[in-house]
Amino acid sequence: MKKALAIAALFTLAPISSALAGSDLMAQARETFKPIPSAPPALSGNVVTRERVELGKMLFFEPRLSASHLISCNTCHNVGMGGDDNLETSIGHGWAKGPRNAPTALNAVFNVAQFWDGRAEDLKAQAKGPVQAGVEMSNTPAMVEKTLNSIPEYVERFGKAFPGEKSPVSFDNMAKAIESFEATLITPASRFDQFLEGNAAAMTDQEKRGLALFMDKGCSGCHSGVNVGGQDYYPFGVVEKPGADVLPQGDKGRFAVTKTADDAYVFRAGPLRNIALTAPYFHSGKVWNLEQAVAIMGQSQLGEKLSDAQIKDITAFLETLTGEQPDVTYPILPASTAATPLPVAMATK
Amino acid sequence: MKKALAIAALFTLAPISSALAGSDLMAQARETFKPIPSAPPALSGNVVTRERVELGKMLFFEPRLSASHLISCNTCHNVGMGGDDNLETSIGHGWAKGPRNAPTALNAVFNVAQFWDGRAEDLKAQAKGPVQAGVEMSNTPAMVEKTLNSIPEYVERFGKAFPGEKSPVSFDNMAKAIESFEATLITPASRFDQFLEGNAAAMTDQEKRGLALFMDKGCSGCHSGVNVGGQDYYPFGVVEKPGADVLPQGDKGRFAVTKTADDAYVFRAGPLRNIALTAPYFHSGKVWNLEQAVAIMGQSQLGEKLSDAQIKDITAFLETLTGEQPDVTYPILPASTAATPLPVAMATK
Repeated sequence: MKKALAIAALFTLAPISSALAGSDLMAQARETFKPIPSAPPALSGNVVTRERVELGKMLFFEPRLSASHLISCNTCHNVGMGGDDNLETSIGHGWAKGPRNAPTALNAVFNVAQFWDGRAEDLKAQAKGPVQAGVEMSNTPAMVEKTLNSIPEYVERFGKAFPGEKSPVSFDNMAKAIESFEATLITPASRFDQFLEGNAAAMTDQEKRGLALFMDKGCSGCHSGVNVGGQDYYPFGVVEKPGADVLPQGDKGRFAVTKTADDAYVFRAGPLRNIALTAPYFHSGKVWNLEQAVAIMGQSQLGEKLSDAQIKDITAFLETLTGEQPDVTYPILPASTAATPLPVAMATK
Repeated sequence: MKKALAIAALFTLAPISSALAGSDLMAQARETFKPIPSAPPALSGNVVTRERVELGKMLFFEPRLSASHLISCNTCHNVGMGGDDNLETSIGHGWAKGPRNAPTALNAVFNVAQFWDGRAEDLKAQAKGPVQAGVEMSNTPAMVEKTLNSIPEYVERFGKAFPGEKSPVSFDNMAKAIESFEATLITPASRFDQFLEGNAAAMTDQEKRGLALFMDKGCSGCHSGVNVGGQDYYPFGVVEKPGADVLPQGDKGRFAVTKTADDAYVFRAGPLRNIALTAPYFHSGKVWNLEQAVAIMGQSQLGEKLSDAQIKDITAFLETLTGEQPDVTYPILPASTAATPLPVAMATK
């Protein structure tokens, strides 16, 4: 974390006006950020095929992966709503309230690791979490495998997606298939991407002022790269801890993963792609207004009270990060059979 | 109901073998059933336009129509799962358990009226029910209108879908738009439709035996027309009331609508299109197996203990009622604004 703090400080001290000078802005932005590519990246430990992506899409929309047969990945990572559920924290099995705001699935493949605390190294590791979490889908690997094995079309599709494997219908392969689909959920061609690719007219003057402020004030010290964040871990409150209304004391973030005192209240910097679509903000989901979120970040991470005009400019820049949303045809899911486990008896109100 | 009973009795007494004789079967079937048309029908009191259908699709997938911002029409009428949720009864706001099995939205436009008790005369009347039901979406018309009015893209789309109206963003128009979309959720070209349209090879011998039994035994006395049901109301237990495990005593069906003693335990005959995709069965959702459902119907509605072979043949016929499932592109929903009401605070477990 010391390195991260040093970088943040460095950017805080950089001259505010430098980046505003014409093509310098584009050059500086190109050093700091990367455009969303037009095609999904290669995945480590997973060979993406058409069959795997199509199966993964079905599983992403498959409520029978949950104990109740009600909740699918798309329930909380809604591909039509910026890849999340736009709730403070998600509602799960038995109407339980999850502990943290659901991160977007869009462009998640470009993050250094998954979850707010980075406890899953990639999307296939991540996919196993919510299926088993008691407050989310509340299921077990054995029950998922039994369910999928009871449905002939799934057995056939797993066989084709994982050819040559002895037991293709497995919890691990479920996760790999979902990862394959999720890697297609990328949103290229935002106006910011068009700017990075050389079209200076793709952003307005206000948005460019916001971009310059974003870099000069130091925001980009943590929020950089292809996802404008999501690349490393930082304390929430580098300079000044926000109040418990925004940073609840009970959630110590990455500390739970590393058990290192330095990692108390440390979280992965939020990836800011499509941020205008994914309110409410922060791991706590306590802030609904993007301008307010920018103001809080200025104070807590940079120790700076941004002016109203600066906040509006930065917010205008952030709105240029909305890319082309995914074009997803709703999958037709195969019917259950007599061998399919029934949904778990419901808790009634 | 007397008329219905008489018809059922008539069919029960018809000779069993008659319909099996070659083209006679097709002729008899054509008198009893109609194919699903290839295009949506005209709607009473609703002029369907492209703008209205597209808006209706967005609203069908719009969780912000619910108080929690979690539940959309598609949650319980899942277009990828035969148009329902494949649960005994639906899970709604606060994890409440609904009173009856969710009917499919597919081909619902062809039913005489909506809900198991026919209390909504059409789909636009139906659409208003679940949005307001406390155990479903638990919202109010005023809150729906406030929510939609807070989102500029919706205001624009309602204006285009309902041109010339003074207040296009209304609860009524929400319902009309949803009806416009739902009317597109039709599933033509099932093998049974192909048979009705003249292709005798579209069904196997077993399926044809099942169709003949379905007509000769009297099933088609109630389950006829384009939706193979959904056209009129009948007592559950024309001949013999099933046990309380299948027919719970507390739900008197259409009696609650008409307050007529004759209508106690009367329900709309289930439309059987895509029935193989929509387990569990009956208004109670208590029966998961289609063969078992056929056996119960034989006993309760026809007073006949069908043989295992007959049950298998009829079930094989019912499986030919699965049509082409809807091709739906997931809609991209516009972001909330500062004026959008927040989701209602959640009941936690």
